Amino acid sequence: MISWAYINNEFIKEEQAVLHVRDLSILRGYAIFDFFRFSSFRPVFIDQHLARLQSSAGGLGLSIEKDNQELKAITKELIERNKASNGGIRITVTGGISENGYNPSRSCLVITQHNFDELTPEQFEKGIHLLSFEHQRQLPHIKTSDYIMGISLQPWIREQKADDVLFMKNRIITECPRANIFTVNPAGQLCTPAAGILQGVTRKMVMQLAAAHYEVIEKDISLEDIYLAQEVFITSTTKTLLPVRMVDHHSIGKGNSPVGTHILQLYNAVSSVASI
Amino acid sequence: MISWAYINNEFIKEEQAVLHVRDLSILRGYAIFDFFRFSSFRPVFIDQHLARLQSSAGGLGLSIEKDNQELKAITKELIERNKASNGGIRITVTGGISENGYNPSRSCLVITQHNFDELTPEQFEKGIHLLSFEHQRQLPHIKTSDYIMGISLQPWIREQKADDVLFMKNRIITECPRANIFTVNPAGQLCTPAAGILQGVTRKMVMQLAAAHYEVIEKDISLEDIYLAQEVFITSTTKTLLPVRMVDHHSIGKGNSPVGTHILQLYNAVSSVASI
Repeated sequence: MISWAYINNEFIKEEQAVLHVRDLSILRGYAIFDFFRFSSFRPVFIDQHLARLQSSAGGLGLSIEKDNQELKAITKELIERNKASNGGIRITVTGGISENGYNPSRSCLVITQHNFDELTPEQFEKGIHLLSFEHQRQLPHIKTSDYIMGISLQPWIREQKADDVLFMKNRIITECPRANIFTVNPAGQLCTPAAGILQGVTRKMVMQLAAAHYEVIEKDISLEDIYLAQEVFITSTTKTLLPVRMVDHHSIGKGNSPVGTHILQLYNAVSSVASI
Repeated sequence: MISWAYINNEFIKEEQAVLHVRDLSILRGYAIFDFFRFSSFRPVFIDQHLARLQSSAGGLGLSIEKDNQELKAITKELIERNKASNGGIRITVTGGISENGYNPSRSCLVITQHNFDELTPEQFEKGIHLLSFEHQRQLPHIKTSDYIMGISLQPWIREQKADDVLFMKNRIITECPRANIFTVNPAGQLCTPAAGILQGVTRKMVMQLAAAHYEVIEKDISLEDIYLAQEVFITSTTKTLLPVRMVDHHSIGKGNSPVGTHILQLYNAVSSVASI
């Protein structure tokens, strides 16, 4: 039960957390955000998420009227008020209300708490099925609120009995709508796309942790490379690391995830000691 | 002074026209809309706008819980309540509040009234300056709330002392962020891009009206074609028809608009008799 949210300068009851319909997030889809977990009341990798939040805001010319120390203090109080030990925090910065309905003036800051279920061992074992789709997200390095393409493809994904899409440009893969992607290629190298992607916090952590054990390479990966990989997995804040078992109805590798399992163990060890 | 708005099933005070921050329009940029003028309390070309609204909603899998007759009746009452004889009406359909924050369930209907100033003869005479920019809008045939690219380019547009951008893909032009584009080529034909665009209501009306006087062609238009055109103009509901005097700091034609002026006269004659 999430009781509290924060908008601009005050904590408010969550059910009263509203924006006027003239806010540019509604009129023009003009907003950025970041999302991070908290565990045992402690935000995980918050510095990395706040750094990206500031970068995204700068990318859209939005200023945040709080510095990172203030954002941390507000987040801490929000988690305490809501009394749940685990969950997610979303910090959204919108274009605010604009005189001409187009040019942003004073941004609006919204902080909300969200439930999310930790992935189970069964979900890890089962993995997911992705469908490749030609599309390059606009401004991919900025974490905007734009998920139109991924969401509009949901009926097709359901019809194909798949789980999500994998975007690619000229058959060079980039990312999923809400996750980065990695392959373990036939030579045993860990590969991940370098360009046209959101720089995921989990992606970066995985690259750093894996580097002690595997050769890690940022490079172009074709759809054919995906089909021939030993392992494929996605990474994100909500899913951490999740194996991809099928792409376009092709099975990946031997259907197991020794590398993914190993890296997830390393990740869990680090995230359990990360704190505000 | 706009006093009233409409959300879902009720008229509400405009200052109370709000959406919860968990609405998918805010969380995921998932919303469509349409916008039309009214003049002397009468909506202009409302049937065409409602047809496109329904098409946009279908394109994103959103259902509108009112039929077009009901939408017309609500619009009529909203205009009467607000007591202004001229302005604009925006009908927005959002993804609504979703259990998992991603998949739309029950959409939300928002109808708001907006002021807008009719263009003056001086603005027509002055025209505008466009800057070409490589970008293809996603799902261009659907009128989504996504204006991220156009708005994020505003600082560059201001710096260049220009007025807006002209999107193109591989140097084949498509449209402006909020308007369609036409050229009068050296052979005197009226040309407009056929693909990768929003099917503008004003664009269609201009094509129909012009066909009695000019050869009208939907075709690929390169940036070089633009530079060599006799005339260039944009069309939209808010701007009707506005000459483009410069593109990328190149002057267009002789700096006058005989064809644009003629077509605008034809358009104004028709729109003045259009009614609900």
